[in-house]
Amino acid sequence: MKGNVIVGQSGGPTAVINSSLAGVIKASWKEGIRRIYGMHYGIEGLLQEDIVDIEDYIVSGQDLSLLKRTPSSFLGTCRYKLPPIEGNEKVYEKIFDILDKKNIEFFLYNGGNDSMDTIKQLSDYALSHGKKQKFMGIPKTIDNDLPMTDHCPGYGSSAKYIATSLKEIIRDNESYGVSKPTVCLVEIMGRHAGWLTAAAALSRDIDCSGPDLIYLPEVPFDIKDFIKRIKALAKNKKSIVVCVSEGLQDKNGKFICELGTVQEHVDAFGHKQLAGTAAYLANVVTQETGLKSRYIEFSSLQRCAAHLASRADSDEAYNVGFIAAKAAFDGNTGKMVTIQVNSREPYVVTYDMFDIHEVANIEKKVPLSWITNDGTYVSDEYLSYARPFIIGRVPPYSAGGLPVHLTMNKKKR
Amino acid sequence: MKGNVIVGQSGGPTAVINSSLAGVIKASWKEGIRRIYGMHYGIEGLLQEDIVDIEDYIVSGQDLSLLKRTPSSFLGTCRYKLPPIEGNEKVYEKIFDILDKKNIEFFLYNGGNDSMDTIKQLSDYALSHGKKQKFMGIPKTIDNDLPMTDHCPGYGSSAKYIATSLKEIIRDNESYGVSKPTVCLVEIMGRHAGWLTAAAALSRDIDCSGPDLIYLPEVPFDIKDFIKRIKALAKNKKSIVVCVSEGLQDKNGKFICELGTVQEHVDAFGHKQLAGTAAYLANVVTQETGLKSRYIEFSSLQRCAAHLASRADSDEAYNVGFIAAKAAFDGNTGKMVTIQVNSREPYVVTYDMFDIHEVANIEKKVPLSWITNDGTYVSDEYLSYARPFIIGRVPPYSAGGLPVHLTMNKKKR
Repeated sequence: MKGNVIVGQSGGPTAVINSSLAGVIKASWKEGIRRIYGMHYGIEGLLQEDIVDIEDYIVSGQDLSLLKRTPSSFLGTCRYKLPPIEGNEKVYEKIFDILDKKNIEFFLYNGGNDSMDTIKQLSDYALSHGKKQKFMGIPKTIDNDLPMTDHCPGYGSSAKYIATSLKEIIRDNESYGVSKPTVCLVEIMGRHAGWLTAAAALSRDIDCSGPDLIYLPEVPFDIKDFIKRIKALAKNKKSIVVCVSEGLQDKNGKFICELGTVQEHVDAFGHKQLAGTAAYLANVVTQETGLKSRYIEFSSLQRCAAHLASRADSDEAYNVGFIAAKAAFDGNTGKMVTIQVNSREPYVVTYDMFDIHEVANIEKKVPLSWITNDGTYVSDEYLSYARPFIIGRVPPYSAGGLPVHLTMNKKKR
Repeated sequence: MKGNVIVGQSGGPTAVINSSLAGVIKASWKEGIRRIYGMHYGIEGLLQEDIVDIEDYIVSGQDLSLLKRTPSSFLGTCRYKLPPIEGNEKVYEKIFDILDKKNIEFFLYNGGNDSMDTIKQLSDYALSHGKKQKFMGIPKTIDNDLPMTDHCPGYGSSAKYIATSLKEIIRDNESYGVSKPTVCLVEIMGRHAGWLTAAAALSRDIDCSGPDLIYLPEVPFDIKDFIKRIKALAKNKKSIVVCVSEGLQDKNGKFICELGTVQEHVDAFGHKQLAGTAAYLANVVTQETGLKSRYIEFSSLQRCAAHLASRADSDEAYNVGFIAAKAAFDGNTGKMVTIQVNSREPYVVTYDMFDIHEVANIEKKVPLSWITNDGTYVSDEYLSYARPFIIGRVPPYSAGGLPVHLTMNKKKR
């Protein structure tokens, strides 16, 4: 008889990370696995033997449906990278002792780059120390920066949130028309890769002009050129909306958000939140052009808005969870499940697996060929790539006008 | 035969302001009104004779359905207060010349306090100068601060957006659990009245702890007491979420957002956006407690998120528009339509009208008895008052995964 399963969630939460958890649980039920354990707060919790029994919270298909509609990490998450094996054998011995004690044979970990490094280290250790456990990685990141996979679960829902909210913001900004235009700067997450900011372009359609300018961190940002473009736009437009990545840098590699006083202030918060790019640029716009300006930061809303989750994204998140668990049961280890797109229209995906050494610690950026030559927009190639990701809805279960979520605060029994 | 209708939208847009426009149009169709004109950018546009023919854009019930699902002001808006009649007769003569030229007999204006002042001035002028035109006010404001009406169309959808997003933010903030808690400050609109910030309390339910503290502008804010409470919460909680009004003031009447360097910077933008209260307090929290902090500003998203519009709110917005137009056709002038709540559970509303002199320029705040004695939360009275406003959804029409909106960019014919 097969041993037990443990599953963990790691890194920044997403709107659909719990769909992957639902996939793991469903596959485990189907396989007849006796116990499914959850790491409470990821590998960091596991190291403290903070382990929960999934059965205490989730026992039915109805529970899984609600779980899929619950944003953020149901099990709790962490940002914790395992140290190298060499010189830290004690850490690894401790982990495997805990796994052995609970008769855990299958280890599923859902996360981004750092989390795949965890899978790499643990599967390497298991192989070199003759351990029975199988380790599989489940991709997840709104940043969409994992290699080998066409895209990452979590990205589609964030892209849908960004494009939908932006469409509404553009309508709002357009509503004042008699006086001079207002310049609205919208700041979007993504420190090194511009995938999330690129999603702003999805808002452009027959009923929406889309943002006027989109700046990704892949291209050095030139403030003088930016101001020149704002002045040109202001001659003909009643509303100007500009989307900027939080990670914009100038040609010397200095973050734009570090140029102004706002960022100095933000630094004092003691955490490395890259906020202030839009605020700083809004200030520059008003000083240099005399135009009114305002700024909007999507902040964590762009990663937790399950009420706008994409059906395509939620389904894929479920599938990679299910397939990773199934692959582990079939004897695979040290791999990450990937999404392969056979056709974008109609949208047809298949799933594959890659050696975790080809995945861990590698960051995939937006190809420069998908950014316009002047560095102020994304190309049609990007739009064709991303459009299928935002299709369909996962309407929340609702009570009293608000979405209902599954939480660990109440045990089933 | 009756004369024509003109309708205008004024002040900050909302998610359901176009439902009121739809109500005016439907009532006009039913009445057999020959032409329905729209002020392009409110009274400011009217003064420039910028008038559109509704028939060029909206001719069917299907158009009205899409209009109801379109956020922000379809006709464009303005922030413009008419000068006093005395000494400015020319302005009024010009307006009435334009109305007479187009054979306009019914003037509907949809907005908040300033817009009701417009109705007051115009109806006063008409009565004292023997003009035939009838002027009716249609309430609208996310701020919920108009008197005589139980609540204002627009408020319910903003409250639903705030409560829904907050629920998702709280789940996100709770997901990290092994290390010290993160304090998340959420800034909500409302300069003088705390209605929008109060809506944060609606997120508290069996599956959500709700924010830990809620600070309204009706009560002076005490930073020392605030920090003491954060320290106490940090002893037992893994996540702390605090909601603050943008208009918080200390006991000397100084805006909290003006205490820090962020606000000085924001002031340089040249507009009176009261941003920075949450940013400033996040900074203070980290300095005084050593805890990690972050801040989120809902910004204009809270007034334009039609994808989260409340059914109750959308229906009421439609009804006040319809009833105001009908009342004008019946000979009423110088009045604003109001919503009266006969029963909150089950929720039963009726509509009434009040003399515009009882409404214009008066601001209704949250009653102090609805704020807890320590000034850090709202009472159950508020929750009973507001819960019905967020019930039900108005699912957007959708194409390509995004909501579809009606715009003036394309003429029907």
